[in-house]
Amino acid sequence: MKQTLRSLAEKIGCRLIGSGAIKVTAVSSLRSANKDSLVFVENEEHLKTALASAAAAIIAGEFAMPDSAGKAARKPLLISPHPRLAFARAERLLGGAESHRAVHPSAIVAASARLGKKVAIGAGVIVGERTKIGDESTIGSGCVIGDATGVPAADGVVIGSHCSIDANVTIYPGTILGNRVVVQAGAVLGSAGFGYVKDSETGRYERSPQIGRLVIEDDVEIGANSTIDRGALDETRIRRGAKIDNLVHIGHNVQIGENVVIAAQTGLSGSVIIEDNVIMGGQVGIGDHARVEAGAMLGGQCGILPKKVVRGKGVFWGTPARPVKEYLKELAFLSRSAKKGR
Amino acid sequence: MKQTLRSLAEKIGCRLIGSGAIKVTAVSSLRSANKDSLVFVENEEHLKTALASAAAAIIAGEFAMPDSAGKAARKPLLISPHPRLAFARAERLLGGAESHRAVHPSAIVAASARLGKKVAIGAGVIVGERTKIGDESTIGSGCVIGDATGVPAADGVVIGSHCSIDANVTIYPGTILGNRVVVQAGAVLGSAGFGYVKDSETGRYERSPQIGRLVIEDDVEIGANSTIDRGALDETRIRRGAKIDNLVHIGHNVQIGENVVIAAQTGLSGSVIIEDNVIMGGQVGIGDHARVEAGAMLGGQCGILPKKVVRGKGVFWGTPARPVKEYLKELAFLSRSAKKGR
Amino acid sequence: MKQTLRSLAEKIGCRLIGSGAIKVTAVSSLRSANKDSLVFVENEEHLKTALASAAAAIIAGEFAMPDSAGKAARKPLLISPHPRLAFARAERLLGGAESHRAVHPSAIVAASARLGKKVAIGAGVIVGERTKIGDESTIGSGCVIGDATGVPAADGVVIGSHCSIDANVTIYPGTILGNRVVVQAGAVLGSAGFGYVKDSETGRYERSPQIGRLVIEDDVEIGANSTIDRGALDETRIRRGAKIDNLVHIGHNVQIGENVVIAAQTGLSGSVIIEDNVIMGGQVGIGDHARVEAGAMLGGQCGILPKKVVRGKGVFWGTPARPVKEYLKELAFLSRSAKKGR
Repeated sequence: MKQTLRSLAEKIGCRLIGSGAIKVTAVSSLRSANKDSLVFVENEEHLKTALASAAAAIIAGEFAMPDSAGKAARKPLLISPHPRLAFARAERLLGGAESHRAVHPSAIVAASARLGKKVAIGAGVIVGERTKIGDESTIGSGCVIGDATGVPAADGVVIGSHCSIDANVTIYPGTILGNRVVVQAGAVLGSAGFGYVKDSETGRYERSPQIGRLVIEDDVEIGANSTIDRGALDETRIRRGAKIDNLVHIGHNVQIGENVVIAAQTGLSGSVIIEDNVIMGGQVGIGDHARVEAGAMLGGQCGILPKKVVRGKGVFWGTPARPVKEYLKELAFLSRSAKKGR
Repeated sequence: MKQTLRSLAEKIGCRLIGSGAIKVTAVSSLRSANKDSLVFVENEEHLKTALASAAAAIIAGEFAMPDSAGKAARKPLLISPHPRLAFARAERLLGGAESHRAVHPSAIVAASARLGKKVAIGAGVIVGERTKIGDESTIGSGCVIGDATGVPAADGVVIGSHCSIDANVTIYPGTILGNRVVVQAGAVLGSAGFGYVKDSETGRYERSPQIGRLVIEDDVEIGANSTIDRGALDETRIRRGAKIDNLVHIGHNVQIGENVVIAAQTGLSGSVIIEDNVIMGGQVGIGDHARVEAGAMLGGQCGILPKKVVRGKGVFWGTPARPVKEYLKELAFLSRSAKKGR
Repeated sequence: MKQTLRSLAEKIGCRLIGSGAIKVTAVSSLRSANKDSLVFVENEEHLKTALASAAAAIIAGEFAMPDSAGKAARKPLLISPHPRLAFARAERLLGGAESHRAVHPSAIVAASARLGKKVAIGAGVIVGERTKIGDESTIGSGCVIGDATGVPAADGVVIGSHCSIDANVTIYPGTILGNRVVVQAGAVLGSAGFGYVKDSETGRYERSPQIGRLVIEDDVEIGANSTIDRGALDETRIRRGAKIDNLVHIGHNVQIGENVVIAAQTGLSGSVIIEDNVIMGGQVGIGDHARVEAGAMLGGQCGILPKKVVRGKGVFWGTPARPVKEYLKELAFLSRSAKKGR
């Protein structure tokens, strides 16, 4: 959606330097800038490149302010204390062109499903019985939502408004999604957890009941091919604003707090609790029933033992995870000793 | 399927205390119990909660037996030495309601495919030439079974009876599944292995032939988005009763023994042998041609080098994996030394 | 495609010993050899098995040459300095039977898509607007190529010639693939990267623009259920001949060099650079903005810190990764000390 710089600057909270009448149609990188695009820079050096580029205008920090000596900017500037955040918001405003919002004729939508206004449903999508999809949500082609093939009387799926579910996603019956949830391609939501009981006579395993559900709150985002199991008896819950990368595994009964960030390929075993604002690197592994307290940071590949409680806001690393300073001391000691020790 | 407590107790091997005429329709958690549901408890404390809940009846251990002093139970009890196992079996019995078992009209089933009795096939499923599917098996919506697009004369897929294949699963041509196999959404069975030959003149890689097959025996369960490669020349084989969690990778020519348990995100390189009853934590990595002997337990994130043989029934941890006692000693030594060593 | 040994030997660069008129129809393993199949062996012991098998002919090294003493071969031999490579090439030549190459009537191909000659498109495939697919490429059933459900004016996908895209793959709009690219089932190409900006006032995250693209060059192969994100502003690029195993994660803006080999479940964070000919084991993790120089080998499960540069052609192992000799020395020191130290 084409916008004037004046209008855009106002909406994203920037100070405008230069002509507000100029219009832009999209954000772009410096390298692919064109005469209709808006770019952003975070330092002096990139500013020079941006000024020399074809871009229509530049989002930048205070450092870019033309000085009183008359060094006038050669392009309109949108000055923000947080240029990257302003840029992210500009993208959302400019990206909001009218898209085709309809149900593709090849989609198979159950009679009892209820769709909100302006819901877009792609080709070949399957929407099961009793599914509810809120206003302006999008379901990408090839998704299977609430499949109940061969299953008696399964619960419907509930998807809030303004959600974006990409292609080939599978959502099991009974899963509940809030508003503005983003799910990338191939993710699986609500699968059965990995819980078995061993029959001590035969040595064989039988699956424990996995009859709970998965609840995903507002503004959660989930990466491609990630898998999240439903609760065994009660629920798995991902709280508001959590961001989850690709190929992440989340086991049954797990509780993820608000604004938690989980990088790719991390795995959480059953009944793990991650409190608010925890940040986890990639390939972290957490044993069942462990708890990570609010604000902790877990370094990439670290491992937390089952039932362990990670306390406090520090940074933790290694397997088993310990405060990063301790771990670095251990590594240094080991390196030194091995060298002289020969 | 509604059942009387008397009939249920008999089928799952419990001693019934109280009225056998009462009927239940489902299992449930304590929290979501209602007047038609059966719950289970494993200790005294939960028993109190269960007795106070709306549940119709309770599966419990011997500890729940009303004592002779007339402390009569306020609800019917089903007493079992293994309450969790009894509960799992009750769920299977109660869950067996008549489900809609049919081939969805949008499924595309090749003329040469042969389907057993009461096979359920979801919407948009593709079933390739020469596929065989046994009685009462279920294929979820969006699955692609034995796709031979552009491939000449591919073998059919064989799926046994009472299998449950969830939505969006891909099974490559030539794959063979036994009976009662469970495959969760998004899993890929029978993909080509990661085997290349380097052309020493050009430095480029060419794929070695990956013309073997994948055989999955009875009662195996496979988690969401896991991938299992077919054999290069001969076969990859997952033996009876093995349980595999989400996002697990199993390379070409791997042999997995009976009742092996593999937690999420573990990866097995080509030609690995895992003997019977091995238990593996999450994110374990095993190099090609390694062998893990029967009954070993591998701790989460541990790593086994290529060609290594892990002997005996002990517990192993760390990378490279060693007996857990040794590893814990090493960790303790390191922590101590780094602290005083400064 | 049935071929005479004479013609085959010529095409794959082998010396033929024995009758060139004999025809073979396929390659096979020793175990599944039959009278029409070609097998290969790399040592004296397997040669005996091969000679005793039903195989029509044998690819072998110089060691298999019949000696002057008249020890004539009992089967035709194709002698090569690289028997495994010759075998791989024989498989490709024999496998090239005429396959059914057509667009399945259930596929939904946008009016503006352009397909080359002999393109095969499976059942239920979705091909979005402005997609281009080159000659003799194959798109497996259930793939979603360039889905633009609810997205305004998305770019088309470009797929070169002789590509092989297996079932249930998702390719996001704007992704570009070269020629002879292989993508196995369930892989996701071009998803949005994991980049967020924190709003310091609310503590919430907002996604940074992820408006770049993904470019995959000729002869790249990608395993099942792997995920590759598009560039944030510019591009993610996988260079010619790179081979990527199953369940691998590649973040936004990553650059992968020519002939790089990446084993299963390895994860590369955003903006990582992997130079030519690097070989990476399974479950390796690399932090954002790290660089691995040409020719390095990274052992399984090793971890590279963000921004780290790994220099030289050596072998690296451990987390944080160090030269393997150093790491082994450290492990030996630790084991020794813990034992005596008690």
